[in-house]
Amino acid sequence: MNAHMDIATYMQTLGRQARAASRLMAKASTAAKNAALLAMAAGIRARRAELLAANAEDVAKANGLEPAMLDRLTISPKSVEAMAQGLEQVAALPDPIGEISDMKFRPTGIQVGKMRVPLGVVGIIYEARPNVTADAAALCLKSGNAAILRGGKEALRCNQAIAACVRAGLAAAGLPETAVQVVEITDRAAVGHLVAMPEFVDVIVPRGGKGLIERISREARVPVIKHLDGNCHVYVDDSADAAKALKILENAKTQRLGTCNTAESLLIARPVAASLAPSLCAMLIAKGVEIRGCAETQALVPQAKAATEEDYYTEYLAAIISCKVVADVDEAIAHINKYSSAHTETIVTEDYTRAMRFLREVDSSSVMVNASTRFADGFEYGLGAEIGISTDKFHARGPVGLEGLTSQKWIVFGNGEVRS
Amino acid sequence: MNAHMDIATYMQTLGRQARAASRLMAKASTAAKNAALLAMAAGIRARRAELLAANAEDVAKANGLEPAMLDRLTISPKSVEAMAQGLEQVAALPDPIGEISDMKFRPTGIQVGKMRVPLGVVGIIYEARPNVTADAAALCLKSGNAAILRGGKEALRCNQAIAACVRAGLAAAGLPETAVQVVEITDRAAVGHLVAMPEFVDVIVPRGGKGLIERISREARVPVIKHLDGNCHVYVDDSADAAKALKILENAKTQRLGTCNTAESLLIARPVAASLAPSLCAMLIAKGVEIRGCAETQALVPQAKAATEEDYYTEYLAAIISCKVVADVDEAIAHINKYSSAHTETIVTEDYTRAMRFLREVDSSSVMVNASTRFADGFEYGLGAEIGISTDKFHARGPVGLEGLTSQKWIVFGNGEVRS
Repeated sequence: MNAHMDIATYMQTLGRQARAASRLMAKASTAAKNAALLAMAAGIRARRAELLAANAEDVAKANGLEPAMLDRLTISPKSVEAMAQGLEQVAALPDPIGEISDMKFRPTGIQVGKMRVPLGVVGIIYEARPNVTADAAALCLKSGNAAILRGGKEALRCNQAIAACVRAGLAAAGLPETAVQVVEITDRAAVGHLVAMPEFVDVIVPRGGKGLIERISREARVPVIKHLDGNCHVYVDDSADAAKALKILENAKTQRLGTCNTAESLLIARPVAASLAPSLCAMLIAKGVEIRGCAETQALVPQAKAATEEDYYTEYLAAIISCKVVADVDEAIAHINKYSSAHTETIVTEDYTRAMRFLREVDSSSVMVNASTRFADGFEYGLGAEIGISTDKFHARGPVGLEGLTSQKWIVFGNGEVRS
Repeated sequence: MNAHMDIATYMQTLGRQARAASRLMAKASTAAKNAALLAMAAGIRARRAELLAANAEDVAKANGLEPAMLDRLTISPKSVEAMAQGLEQVAALPDPIGEISDMKFRPTGIQVGKMRVPLGVVGIIYEARPNVTADAAALCLKSGNAAILRGGKEALRCNQAIAACVRAGLAAAGLPETAVQVVEITDRAAVGHLVAMPEFVDVIVPRGGKGLIERISREARVPVIKHLDGNCHVYVDDSADAAKALKILENAKTQRLGTCNTAESLLIARPVAASLAPSLCAMLIAKGVEIRGCAETQALVPQAKAATEEDYYTEYLAAIISCKVVADVDEAIAHINKYSSAHTETIVTEDYTRAMRFLREVDSSSVMVNASTRFADGFEYGLGAEIGISTDKFHARGPVGLEGLTSQKWIVFGNGEVRS
């Protein structure tokens, strides 16, 4: 109980400091923010040996971690350089803060429009990936926010070493060191406090697996930019160009198996099922992908196993794809709106009307025509950086760049006008 | 317990129907939505006698209601006509849904941009004001959402009569009648279910007093577009034009005492306190406004009472104003960012640099230069309609029009591109 009280006090102190720092960050000049980012990059390069040593200690103590997690925890000279370059890239992005738009005169004489402003204090909760510390700090700083970072406990030493570079960079640019704070308490209760301090924290961005994000969403008393499943679909319409369908499906399913924008389900229009399903599935099978299909798929593709209802809901993140023959674009849209996780879907078609209907009626964060689902990504969309991919509709949807960490306030230029 | 189970089942049924209707509303044509709105307006005019009779029954049964609430509950032939006109005005607004913007080619060959889409299902919770039923239904319908409306139990009969007109209008336009549903259970538990069904409801808009909104925010498991206090400030800078200051303060404080954009606090820069405080306060006192000031104010304005710390946090909604002499624009900004409810603030100044600093550094949803705080309003800002004024930063900030009930999905036009 006493320890619990201490954690609460500690988190409140971080929160209070972050709120105070956020006021200064909101008005920081673009030059100061960029200078801080470049100083951090230089600091990370200069202290490469220290970062690697701290990480080696983390790795040595991380007993019983799964190989994949151990891989993400471990940094190399190359990943240190990547961190530094990431900071420089964020410095090169345009500053979103203070941007004034849509200033229009009203009949009353006032001129009304919007100014882009930071959200305030961003809490980032992530797993044992030290690079997220530098990356998240950079995005929050550039967007004029203060950040409280809570990384996986296995990476604590390395995170502290990176945080020291971040603080030194802030100080070098004359910005408050408390603009980026790393939670140094590894107790899980710290997260519980972080997500439940609306007076100090404006938004939580969890970066990690579905379990982490669901837990945080349940506990949070502030808005959460959520990134849940990517159960993405490729729908091959009966007017599809067969070559495009093959190329898009191959890329969408097999370029990388474990990403959220990888296709997990293939829908084929009945009129072309007999002509296209065998070749499309043969390509996937040749690449080691298991097909789980409906009865019609199985009749056309003997290697296909039977798909269960559950399969159509599943994000495999593995060499498996569900497959279904559908009557037409109507059934495809209905199937997607029922089973999809609303991440990314693509239609392969040469038919204008069906393309436009698919775009309008599919209720997902990214909807594409004749392009691979793998393009659903902040960098591919030209955002320059990505804090995550939102599977919510509220505030930000799909890939979230710096703008997702901002809001717009209304501004009014007057000359003594009053309301009548 | 059994009754409780029944309410849960009832609310789930409404939710399921709303979710299904929302799919149809999302793809409804602009013509159909406008036809429905115009049919509703015609229906409300045609059934005016029924609405007034239902309302008279509501009023007769509403024992012990405060006079102000009774006033809001009561409708007249004039307010029935206003409802019909409101529906026609929403029909005349541009349709925000399907709007495509920012389509840009990327180096990969894909063209990426955004399409505006409905949020899905909107839950509106309001007090005993029958006009909100028509108004909220119209805004949700035009923005392609389905709505579940839960009005105050005192207005149930009139709300049901209005809902019948709404359903008839939907049916006349070939749209699903379940696109707008009125909760007919008056038990408070219905609200608890409505705000905790994320599978069926995408956002809650509470329209009512602070108590209602705080309670709903605490219980909600979906996003809430909140409208809390309006503790608005007028800061008279030492470079203010005295005539503008007098005119703006008079309008901001005294045009209407009970609105959220009414000024509740006056800050005056010390260099002009002696010259301006007496005349500004004399104007307010002449209009019956009580001054609660700091020691300096009291020295300059003998009628001023002493302000407590609490006064500076207070939204009076009454003929009272707090007043403080501050050193300069820095202290004014710091005072506002501490005490304000972040609704609307205005600076009166002829100084360019201070005007720009005030605009940038004051963290409120509307920040003005030389204009009355009373302008903070969806209609005055040119939104055409207003579902509320958000005091949050997330999703929507300040006056919220149709756009606040929408989101944007990403759309991609390709020609067979794949990611490399």
